This record gives sequence, structure tokens and C-alpha cells, in this order.
Amino acid sequence: MSEIKALMNHQVRLASRPSGMPTQENWHFASEPVGNIQAGGLLIKTLCLSMDPAMRGWMNAGKSYIEPVQIGEVMRAGGVGRVIASENPLFAVGDYVNAGLGAQEYCLIEKANIKRSGIFKIDPSLGLTTWLNVLGMPGMTGYFGLLEVGQPKPGETVVVSGAAGAVGQTVGQMAMLKGCRVVGIAGGKAKCDWVVKELGFDACIDYKNEDVREGLKQHCPDGVDIYFDNVGGEILDLVLTKITRGARIIICGAISQYNNTTAIKGPANYLSLLVNRARMQGIVVFDYAENYPVAIAEMSGYLKEGRMKSREDIVMGLESFPDALLKLFNGENFGKLVLQVAKD
Amino acid sequence: MSEIKALMNHQVRLASRPSGMPTQENWHFASEPVGNIQAGGLLIKTLCLSMDPAMRGWMNAGKSYIEPVQIGEVMRAGGVGRVIASENPLFAVGDYVNAGLGAQEYCLIEKANIKRSGIFKIDPSLGLTTWLNVLGMPGMTGYFGLLEVGQPKPGETVVVSGAAGAVGQTVGQMAMLKGCRVVGIAGGKAKCDWVVKELGFDACIDYKNEDVREGLKQHCPDGVDIYFDNVGGEILDLVLTKITRGARIIICGAISQYNNTTAIKGPANYLSLLVNRARMQGIVVFDYAENYPVAIAEMSGYLKEGRMKSREDIVMGLESFPDALLKLFNGENFGKLVLQVAKD
Repeated sequence: MSEIKALMNHQVRLASRPSGMPTQENWHFASEPVGNIQAGGLLIKTLCLSMDPAMRGWMNAGKSYIEPVQIGEVMRAGGVGRVIASENPLFAVGDYVNAGLGAQEYCLIEKANIKRSGIFKIDPSLGLTTWLNVLGMPGMTGYFGLLEVGQPKPGETVVVSGAAGAVGQTVGQMAMLKGCRVVGIAGGKAKCDWVVKELGFDACIDYKNEDVREGLKQHCPDGVDIYFDNVGGEILDLVLTKITRGARIIICGAISQYNNTTAIKGPANYLSLLVNRARMQGIVVFDYAENYPVAIAEMSGYLKEGRMKSREDIVMGLESFPDALLKLFNGENFGKLVLQVAKD
Repeated sequence: MSEIKALMNHQVRLASRPSGMPTQENWHFASEPVGNIQAGGLLIKTLCLSMDPAMRGWMNAGKSYIEPVQIGEVMRAGGVGRVIASENPLFAVGDYVNAGLGAQEYCLIEKANIKRSGIFKIDPSLGLTTWLNVLGMPGMTGYFGLLEVGQPKPGETVVVSGAAGAVGQTVGQMAMLKGCRVVGIAGGKAKCDWVVKELGFDACIDYKNEDVREGLKQHCPDGVDIYFDNVGGEILDLVLTKITRGARIIICGAISQYNNTTAIKGPANYLSLLVNRARMQGIVVFDYAENYPVAIAEMSGYLKEGRMKSREDIVMGLESFPDALLKLFNGENFGKLVLQVAKD
């Protein structure tokens, strides 16, 4: 145990709150010894961290659906890791787990925090990073947002923005499996080609190089029954002009607005909800925590059968955390963005 | 019959489409003989017309939830009248009816248009104008919007804007009857006093003289579970900051935005829907047409028992149509705005 106590734990801590896009100055790299494991606790070596658009919101002061990260704290991050020391009978050394690890090399979870960490064992044979993508929080978000809030019916047209992202790829693939026509919106030809050719979407609009209004007109001739919105802003407003009677819009995020230094742009076409008797509803994945096992069982099955795919974009090294986060906001990541902190 | 044929029918026709607030120039006063009643048709003398914010939308080019009024056409308007000639066995001379009469003194409904006119007989003992208010389209809108979309539960806090208006008074009174706390938003002390003292709302915020944000804070200490929105704009945005987890926002209209010459202001705080897993849904009353009798039976009962009230603001004379319409948009009307075209 003594060599563990002495392990140095490198960490990314929040140094200050950003205004607009985060910069290097908002981060502080620290290190401290791992410390003692008490009875009931366990120590996890971080292998991969999930890089999420939601992180930008956690950096702001003021409570949203979750408390903000405090100045000086280790940045909040979900991840997968390997148990390297355990005083808890439910976890053995060598177990692979998914948990709220934080942006650090090692995570010591005390007995009292086991539940709060959301820790659960994972099957590494499905690919470690898959557990941060289709089988992780983004996957759960897409699965429950689409199925519970969206209530898709066979033959309906589903549009999803951020289509090549972690949530988007889950939403689009699940929608196809439920018999829907699926049109993605993504940035760049490579991403659009991938969701159409690899995942099988019916079409994908490249918002960086195409006219989204024209694209919707062309690919959604009968209108949009379900829109799963990850981006907000102008694209939400355009889709609102194409929704059908009784349409459902799932508000999952608004990545186009997270780094605004001015007021958020509200959807000017929201009265389309009135004309179309449509509904716009927010989703927070934690509400479905009890049913994660159902979603994981269903989607693991699809993955094993090759009926569903999972693509990750992997950046190496904890020191790359600040730059990796920015990739999310300029749309550079191709697939679920993952920071690999250690090999095994 | 010959004297009927020769009756001159004064009418208000749409002369041009307004940009912003309608002016006298957008209207054309015309008159023409009533004409022949064919088999199956009937002739109705207009007594009262319903003056509705939605009229502003019907004056615009382009289809919304209903076709626009064409240039030169008699302006669309619902109203109550008395059958003065009938070639239809279902209606007798002397019957009082509610129908889409148009802004004119007489309405000749041909057999083929009977259904489309939405005509039904009314009980005049409940008050003719009540049939344009709580028992008319606004009442149906409030009833089904609140109950079907809002799904109120006893003890919940319901906020309604345009509280002294036709829809607002129905929503607030129905919400109280369903056991909710009700907070109105209205313009001016007289309206606020009326909804609190006469109708029994728990509170009413005077948006013309009070800080709405402060008012919501004071009167909705546990947040807003249901917001019935008739106004849009700044007030919708303020209420969004106060909604509770799982809140329902019913989008019924946006009177603050109907005369905009610039783009509609979208709700900048719409991401509150995400944080609060809340839903914003539009309602168009026609969808509930089959169930109007249920609502009318229930609310007639409350009216007869004195458990519900109905207040109208009556303007006299068809020639007042253009000015009367403007009263809706500067908030001058106190209660459902009705244009009395004839006494009986």
C-alpha cells in the first residue's frame, strides 16, 4: 500500500471562470499524493475521460441542473478506469469501471461517495471508449431523449444535429432501428459521409458548406416529426419552420450558444409550436438513471450484432485537456471526444 | 322573402395587408344586398362579434394554422346572431346561434358551408356575449389548453398572462376550480384588482406598473408549474426563469409580437426547459372541437352556480370594428372584447 500512498496524482483544476471560450488561464495543473484508502473506499486509475459540451456549463458560476465546479476544484469529468486498490468488497483490483473520476490520473473514492460517483463495472470487451459513448452518458441521453421524450413512430422523419457526435450517433442509429427516416446535420463532408455511409442515415446536411434550409427542404419533403437538438441557435430556428403537426423537439443542448458572451439567441420561430401543436421539451439524462441497465442491455446487443456502431475521437494525455475541450466547440472532433489519460 | 333579398348588408372587408399595427386604410366598408337563400341555407342577423388577437394573424399573407383572409374578402369573425330566415330543417327562425359570421350585419350560410361555419345553437339565457367568451372559442382555448396540455394538479402554481382577457379569465378560473394556486399577469390596477377580488385569483401582477420579475418572486415562492402564455416576448422570458422541474408552458399566443415589423423575439431563456425537464407546447383550439360540448356543459354549470364569471367589454357598432381591434393590442379592453352589431 505504501507505494500507492506515494503515487503522485496529476490533476486539472479550475483556476478561474471563463468568459466566452475557455483559455489556458482558466486551468491549473496540480499534483498531489494519492493518499490513504479507508475502509469501503477504492482507488481507480483513470484510463479515458469523456470530454463533453456540458463541461462548459459546469465552469460557470450558478447552479444549472448540477452544481458548478468550484474554483480550485478538480474539473468534473466522467471516465473509465481500472481499480488498482480496493477496500470495498463490491470491487476487486483489476475491475474496469465507469465513474465520475474527474480530470486526474487517479481517483480515490471514499465509501461515502461510492453512490454519488455513479460507479459501475463495465465489460471491457465492448471497447473501453464505447462506455463513454453509446454505452455512456451521451448514449443514455440519446436513447432516453429519443425514446421517452421523442416517442418515435415507424415512418416518421427524425432530424438530429451534431449527428456525428456522441449523442447524435446514438439518436440517429436508435431512430433507424425504430423504423424512422433519419436526417443528420453535421459540420463537414467527412462527418456527413460517415453518418450516411457507415451508419446508414438517409441523408446528412453539412451545415458548414450547405444551405441548411435547402437541405431540410430536400431531405424532409414531409416535414420533421422529431428534432433532437444538440446545437440551438440558427439551426433550431430553421428546423422550427419545417416541423409537422404534433412534432416533438427534444432540447438536449445548445453547443452553438455555450460560449456566448452576449445573450443566448432564443428561437424566434417558436410560434411554429403553436401553429403545429408541437412540443419542445428538455431532457436531463440523470432522470433515467434507474433505467440505464435497460438501455445498456439493448444497445450492447446491437453493438455485438453489428447493428450499431460507436466512433470515438481520441486525444492523448491529461495535459491536452484544455485543447481537447476546445475541439468540441469548433466542431473539430469526429465522433465522441475522449481524452486518453493512460493506456491501461 | 322579398324584403330579405333587398336588405342591405354592411360589411367590413380587408382592403390591404397591414405592416405593423393595422390602420383605417387596411379596411374597406362595403354594402351589398343580402341575396337569395337556397334550399338548406339560412340567414343570420349578426348581433355580436368576437374581437380576437388572432385576427391580426389572419390579415397577414401566408398560411398559419388557418388560411389568411384574402384582400377584398369580408373579414373573418366569429359571432352570435339570430336566425331570421331558414330553409334548413335544423334551424328555425328565432334560434340564437354561434357561428363564423364575418364582420357584417347579415350572414347568409349556404347548405354546403353549414359545417364549415361551425354553427351551433346557443342558450341565450346565459348571456349572448358569454358565448363569445367563456363558452366561446376563447373559453374552449383556455379550457383545453389548461386541462389537456397543462395537466394541472391540485396545489400547483399556475401563472396566466392576459389574465383579464377572454382566455385568461377562463384559464385562471378553471385552474382554481381544479385546486391550483393562480397568479395572473395583466395591465393596469383595475384589471388586476378585478381578477383578484372578483374572480378570486391568489395574486395578479400589473406588468404596466410593477416589476414582473419581482412579482413572480413574491407570488410564486415555489416556482411556476404551469404557465399559460398569451403574450410572448419579455414576460415569457421572465417566467422561464421561474419554472419548476417538469413545468408545462402552454403557447396560446404572443400578442406582444403580432404587430412587430421586425423579427419576433424568441425566448432567450428557453434552455430553462432543459435544466427543468420542462415542456413548451402549442395549442390550437379547433383540435378539440369534438369535445366542446363537454367543456360547455361543465362551464355552463359553473356559471349557473355562480362559481365562474364571464366579463365582456362591449364596443358598439360595426363601424367601430377598426378601432375596436386596436384596443386589443394596446390592452385597453377589460374582459373579452365584443363588438355589438345589433341589439336583437
